Amino acid sequence: MNCEIISVGTEILLGDILNTNAQFLSRQLAELGINVNGQCTVGDNAKRLTSCLDRAFEKCEVAILTGGLGPTPDDITKQVCSDYFGLEMNEDGEILKKIRSYFKNKNLPMPENNKRQALVPENATVLPNDNGTAPGFIMEKEGRTIIILPGPPGEMTAMFKKYVYPYLKKFSSEIIKSHMIRTFGIGESAMSTAVEDLLQSENPTVAPYAKSGEALLRVTAKANDEAEAEKIMMPFIEEIQKRLGEYIYGVDKESIEQATVELLKQKNLTAAFAESCTAGLCAKRITDISGASQVFHCGVVSYSNEIKNKVLGVKQEHLDKYGAVSEVVACEMAKGIKELSGATFGVSITGMAGPESDDENIPVGVMYIAVTDGITVKVKRLDTGHRKGDTCRDYNRFVGASNAINALRQAVLTYPGSDGKDINELINSY
Amino acid sequence: MNCEIISVGTEILLGDILNTNAQFLSRQLAELGINVNGQCTVGDNAKRLTSCLDRAFEKCEVAILTGGLGPTPDDITKQVCSDYFGLEMNEDGEILKKIRSYFKNKNLPMPENNKRQALVPENATVLPNDNGTAPGFIMEKEGRTIIILPGPPGEMTAMFKKYVYPYLKKFSSEIIKSHMIRTFGIGESAMSTAVEDLLQSENPTVAPYAKSGEALLRVTAKANDEAEAEKIMMPFIEEIQKRLGEYIYGVDKESIEQATVELLKQKNLTAAFAESCTAGLCAKRITDISGASQVFHCGVVSYSNEIKNKVLGVKQEHLDKYGAVSEVVACEMAKGIKELSGATFGVSITGMAGPESDDENIPVGVMYIAVTDGITVKVKRLDTGHRKGDTCRDYNRFVGASNAINALRQAVLTYPGSDGKDINELINSY
Repeated sequence: MNCEIISVGTEILLGDILNTNAQFLSRQLAELGINVNGQCTVGDNAKRLTSCLDRAFEKCEVAILTGGLGPTPDDITKQVCSDYFGLEMNEDGEILKKIRSYFKNKNLPMPENNKRQALVPENATVLPNDNGTAPGFIMEKEGRTIIILPGPPGEMTAMFKKYVYPYLKKFSSEIIKSHMIRTFGIGESAMSTAVEDLLQSENPTVAPYAKSGEALLRVTAKANDEAEAEKIMMPFIEEIQKRLGEYIYGVDKESIEQATVELLKQKNLTAAFAESCTAGLCAKRITDISGASQVFHCGVVSYSNEIKNKVLGVKQEHLDKYGAVSEVVACEMAKGIKELSGATFGVSITGMAGPESDDENIPVGVMYIAVTDGITVKVKRLDTGHRKGDTCRDYNRFVGASNAINALRQAVLTYPGSDGKDINELINSY
Repeated sequence: MNCEIISVGTEILLGDILNTNAQFLSRQLAELGINVNGQCTVGDNAKRLTSCLDRAFEKCEVAILTGGLGPTPDDITKQVCSDYFGLEMNEDGEILKKIRSYFKNKNLPMPENNKRQALVPENATVLPNDNGTAPGFIMEKEGRTIIILPGPPGEMTAMFKKYVYPYLKKFSSEIIKSHMIRTFGIGESAMSTAVEDLLQSENPTVAPYAKSGEALLRVTAKANDEAEAEKIMMPFIEEIQKRLGEYIYGVDKESIEQATVELLKQKNLTAAFAESCTAGLCAKRITDISGASQVFHCGVVSYSNEIKNKVLGVKQEHLDKYGAVSEVVACEMAKGIKELSGATFGVSITGMAGPESDDENIPVGVMYIAVTDGITVKVKRLDTGHRKGDTCRDYNRFVGASNAINALRQAVLTYPGSDGKDINELINSY
């Protein structure tokens, strides 16, 4: 079954609102095994909407429309779709009663305009709106189906899940199921090259993506049921793990922080962060994971040298001689936060996020990351290569935090036991 | 001038990624006075992309495409567009050199695949990519223009602003100019009611928005040039400031953190944060602003009670008796971080972000925020009302951080001098 998603609203074409509805519907339809042929957005314009419907039904049996169901005269979706199928509209007493009581509950007078929302195309299935006044509709004619949903995401998603999902499920004989394999430390091209032959497969498909400095592979199977889909995917996932194992941090994990928090929980270990350039982003991302309080107790954002020295015990002479962005300062920060927090691991990051560098020897994008268990330490020099541009600061901070969290993850994997250097020896060698 | 925005990528049709590019481009084009006829999304499929181009050029002179410029075989945008205009592609030595040096800077071998990114359609204008390997292109033929941009938003937006905006500006006779008035502490409906008559205006238009717990008003004028646009908007902005002044934190500010950092800089003051539930998000947002190091030196994420006591000096008996989410603990955290950091202001936040509450007396969404200058303190109990749902944790953390930053901003506005309570008296009263 093929479907076109049509978003109606001049406000989307003006960029005033972000079209999250199209993403939501695409995901739901993929889950139902319904192919999304395309998405399009059109203004509040009857002629253009009609030609969108024409194009949709060239290839698709179903068109799902969102938006344009409001009470104002520029809300034309219902009228255009009724005309398209040649259907009359009639006022529905039940719906009008509900709209009246919606306003009564809110202690507001009902504007005359809202009566338009009680018009129902003949033979249409009415989809009640539990979160607003405009109902949705399913209209069928000669093997073609138009589904109309309200524009506000809260109203739309609730209505879709409750009424449209079960309706569509009847039509889909096959399902689509995916697994997302997430890697860290390898680029998209190198990853793709390593699995190039697998990318040619048709069922399952294997597709590479890059996102915020990480490379992912999505394995997707079409099948009659879930068990069959899993069976189709399994040999591919195993083969990918064989080839890219050292880079893979998880299958179907949301993020590197989720994988890391879960690993810490499993091993009953804790970690604390001392952050300079990322300034709280590591702590924020770790605690995005619900239940992180089991494994994370403490973070220090030491943005100035004074705080690095005073709170974390970084030696002033090292700050003076080597600068804040240096191997030895990263090690001392990690040691300081480990001691202050009493956590199993102290993790530190110090670097040049940009947009400008204030040290001619340290280009923007260079950072030092250290992880210590109190005895040994591993330090990494990271260079993101992102030196300029509007987004370089955000990018460097995000990728820096990802690398610090991944360095922690690697330390947890081998704990106890590490091939790191003796931390005191290393600091004293400076 | 009419434009169609075409987003290319099967991952969008599968719902894997949210199409923020279309919104960004729509906004920019609106600013340029270019009409966006429609947006459409198409998979990595040559035939479907070609028919999208056909449809676009029925009504438009310009098609802007994003995505499908990557190094892998399913990236077909450049090839399809070259074929569409009947242009040959040739390898460009300069671009190849840049791609090689991009990999060299990252200390990675260049995969053979990436050579495809150095192919240039004949006579095309090359748009350099400062944030990645794939350049963009402007191709013109017989009054029709195709502009191809990379899919990753960081690369796309930087390239658009630097090269495409100036290119398109030449074609637009009328300009659209906006000012965004940002408020804090008033809801969207109350704000709209206060300016209801202004919302009816046609030039400028005044439009209300709600975003992440803030309400904004956008004033937009169409005019022949910038000066005329400003003249049209000015009386409206002044009237809005008259009516909503106490809530407005800035016109054309990016965010509450930007307004706050600028204010601290102006007054040459500093602030430090002690965060519990937001766990680094305040520090992260403050340091998102380039140059924040002048006003922010230190943050402590005290996620556990032990760290609140040990690092910030919160009394153990207060933690035991009143719990971590309480007025007195917020005050002691603010006092602790003020003393530890030596900053002008200590700011604290402690609360229940969710998704679950571990204290039956504190519902999810309740937080305490304190700001002290060392002598007086102001404490606020915040209740976001968001108790459940997939996004409640994110929402509560974000809105909590916004409120903590705004509380700091208000303290800076009146400094020196505050109508707060004596901090030691308040703590001792418990």
